[in-house]
Parts: sequence; C-alpha cells; structure tokens
Amino acid sequence: MTHVALLNTGLPAQLPGHRVLLGTQQPLRLDSGVEIGPFTIAYQTYGRLNADRSNAILICHALTGDQFVIEPHPVTGKPGWWHLAVGPDRPIDTDRFFVICANVLGGCMGTSGPLDENPETGEPYGTGFPVITIADMVRAQVLLLDHLGIEKVFCVLGGSMGGMQVLEFAARYPDRLVAAIPIATATRHSAQNIAFHEVGRQAIMADPEWHGGAYYQQGVRPTKGLSVARMVAHITYLSESALHRKFGRSLQDRMRVSFGFDADFQVESYLRHQGFTFVDRFDANSYLYITRAMDYFDLAVDYDKPLAEIFRSTPVRFCVVSFTGDWLFPTTESRALVLALNAAAAPVSFVDIDSDKGHDAFLLDEPEFHRVLRGFLDGVAEGTGVGKPDAAA
Amino acid sequence: MTHVALLNTGLPAQLPGHRVLLGTQQPLRLDSGVEIGPFTIAYQTYGRLNADRSNAILICHALTGDQFVIEPHPVTGKPGWWHLAVGPDRPIDTDRFFVICANVLGGCMGTSGPLDENPETGEPYGTGFPVITIADMVRAQVLLLDHLGIEKVFCVLGGSMGGMQVLEFAARYPDRLVAAIPIATATRHSAQNIAFHEVGRQAIMADPEWHGGAYYQQGVRPTKGLSVARMVAHITYLSESALHRKFGRSLQDRMRVSFGFDADFQVESYLRHQGFTFVDRFDANSYLYITRAMDYFDLAVDYDKPLAEIFRSTPVRFCVVSFTGDWLFPTTESRALVLALNAAAAPVSFVDIDSDKGHDAFLLDEPEFHRVLRGFLDGVAEGTGVGKPDAAA
Repeated sequence: MTHVALLNTGLPAQLPGHRVLLGTQQPLRLDSGVEIGPFTIAYQTYGRLNADRSNAILICHALTGDQFVIEPHPVTGKPGWWHLAVGPDRPIDTDRFFVICANVLGGCMGTSGPLDENPETGEPYGTGFPVITIADMVRAQVLLLDHLGIEKVFCVLGGSMGGMQVLEFAARYPDRLVAAIPIATATRHSAQNIAFHEVGRQAIMADPEWHGGAYYQQGVRPTKGLSVARMVAHITYLSESALHRKFGRSLQDRMRVSFGFDADFQVESYLRHQGFTFVDRFDANSYLYITRAMDYFDLAVDYDKPLAEIFRSTPVRFCVVSFTGDWLFPTTESRALVLALNAAAAPVSFVDIDSDKGHDAFLLDEPEFHRVLRGFLDGVAEGTGVGKPDAAA
Repeated sequence: MTHVALLNTGLPAQLPGHRVLLGTQQPLRLDSGVEIGPFTIAYQTYGRLNADRSNAILICHALTGDQFVIEPHPVTGKPGWWHLAVGPDRPIDTDRFFVICANVLGGCMGTSGPLDENPETGEPYGTGFPVITIADMVRAQVLLLDHLGIEKVFCVLGGSMGGMQVLEFAARYPDRLVAAIPIATATRHSAQNIAFHEVGRQAIMADPEWHGGAYYQQGVRPTKGLSVARMVAHITYLSESALHRKFGRSLQDRMRVSFGFDADFQVESYLRHQGFTFVDRFDANSYLYITRAMDYFDLAVDYDKPLAEIFRSTPVRFCVVSFTGDWLFPTTESRALVLALNAAAAPVSFVDIDSDKGHDAFLLDEPEFHRVLRGFLDGVAEGTGVGKPDAAA
C-alpha cells in the first residue's frame, strides 16, 4: 500500500513531519482478518530520547485529532491540539520526555487510510479500505515504536479515543510500558455514543457527494454531510452549562430575531463555523472509519474475560482521569475501570476533575488536570529512575 | 390562505377529523408582523362538553406530535401518541372531560403550514410561509376555542413544546383557563437545545432534494436530511440509561460485528428505523418552522419582565411536572419555573417524577405521572365544581 493521494480533500499534498513505511517485511493482520502492508504511519516527535531510551511518551490522539500536538496545524494554522499540556516545562515536559504522536491507522493526515491509493485498482480505497479497530491502531503504534528502537515506553496516554488506545495498549502489551493515563474514556463505547456516531455517519452517507465513498474520483467531497456530522459531535463535546455560559441565548450580530432560518443565535453561528472549518482538515471516509473503530471498542468482549482478569497482575501503573462535566464519557465509566483495576490489584490512582467544560475539558486550560498529569509523570519518572536526555547529546 | 396541498409528502390527501377555517373576519397578526388569514386548523375532540361548557381540556402537542391523541394515527396506523394518558377512565378521563387537540400552526397534519398553497403564487409556501412562534400557535388555539364557543377551558396541558404553549397560554390569557399542567418543559429553550435543533435544520437544508424549501414543486422530498434530523433528535428524547437498557451494545441479527458500515448494533438499526418511518408522516419544512418556534421561545424576554412578574396574581392553578431522567428539559428548568410561580404567589404544585426513561417519559407508561395527572385534574375539577357531561344529552 502506497500512500499517495490527498486529492480533493483540502489537505496539502505534502504534510510536514515524519513518515515511515511499516509492514514491509510482513503485512499487519487486522482484527477483520484482512492483511495490510506496507502501510504509512505519519508521526511527530518532541524532545529527545535519553541514553537508555527510557523517557519516551506515546500520546494517542482522539477521533479528530492528529499528530500535530504542539506546533501550528499545517492546514488550519491553529496551535496544536494539546499545546497547553505538552512542551518545554509543560505538564508533559518535552525537556524531560521524548514525546511521540502518530496519526492513527485509517486517518487522513499522512497515515494510511481510505484516501490512499489501492494498489490493486490504482484508485483511492474509499470504503474498500479495511475496517480498523482500536486494537489495529495500537498494533500500528507498536510497529512504530519498534521502528524507533523503543522497547518500552515510559507512558502511554490520551483522552477519549486516545484513552481507548491507552487501555488496549496496556492490556495487550503490558511489558512495553511503565505507566498509562487513560483520560475521559471508557472500556467500551456506550449505546448513546454509538447512536451519536451513527447519526454522523448517516449524515455523511446521505450526502449525494459521498458517492458511496468514491468521491475522490469525482473531484467532489461530501462537505455538507461531514459538516453536519461535526456539528452534532461538537455538541456532545461540550457541557450544557458550558454552552449556556459561552452563548446562552445571545443573538448573533442583531438586536432581535430575524424570523427566518439564518443563524440568529450565536450558538448556531458557532456550530456552523465548527462544521464549515472541520471539512478543510478532515476526510469524510476517515470519519466513518474512525467512528466505527470507537463503536467496536469493548475491551471485555475483545478479550472475552472480565476487565479485572484482563489486567490481573499487570505491572503497569495507571492514572485514570475523568471530568465531572463530561456527559459523553462520564465519570461512571472511569469509575468502572478503576474498580476493575482495583480488583486486579493493579497500581491505580483516580482523579475526577471538577470541571463544567464537558468532554473537551482535557484539551483545555484545566490547571488541576495539568497538575495531576505533571505530578503523576514526574513522580513515576523519579520513582523508576528515568533520566533526562543528555544536554550535551 | 387555503389549505390544499399535501402533495408529495407521503401524507394522505384527506385526513380524518375536524377542520375549521379561522381568521376569516380579520387576519391573525403574527409575532413577525405578518398577517395570515383565513387559515385552517385541524383538530380532534374526545368526550363531550358539559352543560355549562366548563369541562374542556386543551392538549397541546409536542414538536412532532399532532391532533391524533387516542385513535390510530391515519398515516402510521400506530396508537395515538397519548392513548396511555387520555381516554375513558384514563388519567385524562374523556368520560369526564371534553378534550381538544389541534395541530399547531405551521404543522403538516391539516393545519396551515409551509405545504399550503400560497394564494399569491398558486404554489406551496415552502419557506415563504411566515415564521411562527409559540405565541402564534397559542393565538390560533384561542381562536379555535372561540369557534367552539368555549370561553374558559378547565385545563391546558402538554409536554415539551406543548408545555411551552401551556405557559404562553397561562401568561397571555389567564382568565381563559382554570388550571395549567406544563410537563417536561422550560420557560425558554436552552443553548444546547437550540444547537441540537440547528443540526437537524442543517441536515434538512443540506439535502439537495430540499431545493430551498420548494421541493413540493419538484415532486421530491428531502427525506434523507429529515431522517438524520429525526435521528439526532430521537437520541435527545431518551436517557443514556434507557438506551443502555433497551439496546446496550447488542448486535442486530448477527453474532459478531460485520467490519463494515451496516447497522451492526441494535441501537443503529433502531435509529435508522426512527428516521425512515418519520419521513412518511412529517413534512421537512414544518420541521424547520416548528423547531424555530421552540428556539425563539423565551417567556421573560417576550414579556420583557421577570417570570414572577408575568404570573403575578394569576388565578391559574399550576401543576408543574418534570422527570429525573430528562436531560433535554431537565428538572432544573421546571424548578426555575416553580420558583418564579412561588415568587408570584401563584398556586402551584411541583412533582419531579423518578424515571430513567428520558424526555419521552411523559409519553410512556409512567404510573406515578399518571396518578399525578389524574389526582390534580380530579381534585381541581371537584374543588371548582366541574360537572360531568349529562349522560342523557
């Protein structure tokens, strides 16, 4: 599989950053049974690896995230999605740690996904790309670590879908990480969350410009459907109180309602903007694939045993984080995980951060959350003797 | 305005039930400043009026409800939307009360709305129909009461958007009702609810078959967009726990996931079904108009005074009902209303029904809720000497 085409997506033909061809020796066998390889993983790194290669942190991004954690995004020009948490002297301190973040398998920011050319047809895969699971994403991340010569990462962490990857990583490769921080996540995707994803997928597939997924060839894109999908998802990322505080019923550039279907309310204008801008940086088919991967995630079913059994005598140190105002991945989900980890006698700390910012809180300026991140990482690093990278190296 | 066309909507050309032409003497002036008239109101009645015309109950339906409260729906054949609560010996007892329910202005079940013919153009109105408010809907209901010769109704009640009409009715015409039961509602539509509505509208307007609202003339309908709008709304009508209890992560007619984009999960299949069937009985433009009316609703702003002032020394007896599992119109909204009514020294009782069924609980078999309805109606009827209709009449 050759990564070639970013055609008609609004994405630049050549993205900055690292890219590696994996699965060249032997293909990667996916959960679906399909084998892919070689395939491309696009990734970024921040900071430097120390002498004993023990200071690597793998960040797993969320549904619409990507590998551009700190620097301005190559498409939108906006600061990286986690620049508040990652950087020199930030909670995830790049002076101390070597941070890696890769675009997930099925994504659209340089890693192989549905907009890749299918070598068998010479056309972009579209819906011919194999369906991906969270476990498949993690398999690809592990191959990347192999490529980078990192036997064991210090910590794997991420929020939302990133947290699902953290849990899958810790379950499947317990000897390849010291610590794990699953944030605002769950061990399985809830019925309500599947429902919201299904609405988004239906909105995309209802767009006649989707063309059964083969829109690349037509020189069009299902931007309206993808925009609606983004709008509905965006509501679920915020709390009711955050929406009320940000917008309430304030009108947009007018003193009274228009008695029409323009964006009278600021919240309408904001949502439309979220939809419009999203389509510039995201591929609709990738949206289908990645939401599907989240829906399929159910750790206990995947391992066919109770959660406590999955993590029985795990050496991994867990720090589980939830946010009180998150109704997409509510605290109850994290608590269920913590109970299972406790039952497995796993070393686990659990922090429920008081915040009314909703699911997106993990991306925002939440000082208590940042203190927790820094405290846990620094504490475990000192406890396990992780050295800083050699300043002279 | 002549109600003529139900063309291309899937709705039968001739609906059963009553129909009356109102605004024939003088047109109805809407909040937008536009005057309409004559216009049609389609309605149903159940039970009989008593000798002193004091036993009438006006039921106000919700966003996608209609006037067919008890009997099988003329399009879907399913039982009327409130057959559990209304009927002989039901909580709203049609042996005792004369029940009226009218399709709201802007609707698509016989009352004038966007699928009506615009006499000026000879074409259906589409988005040329004037934008309607909750107050406009209530004005039309009052004209219907005038037509029926009912000076004062015993009770106005309804859930969700129906509850908004109840509040508007009680605020605007305090001398024309004895009691009011606003159920699972709010005195203003929240930012989150506006946001969900906006997603639905964008889904409809993104459908190329919408044709700027002029789809009737094209012989098509934006069924895909309307279906997506219904799907997202439907999620908000249920609680997370109701979705989990009903579906969880159960698969639909299969033992394992398909690794594709079919409806693998029961909740997906259920949602798609909700979308598909809805379009048979509802007009997409009506969906735009009615959601807009809800978004615009803000009692304190409409009256330009605090809620307590609006209801100061009202003679109306209120029974406010909310449901603990309703996150669309949460208990906090009802509590704010009750606080205002208390501050206005209005007679009010408040019941927060323990239910995990979500917003839709008011439509379902909720025995405690039904006991509250029956108890309040019978109690006030006895207290105010409302006689049953004469059995010999």
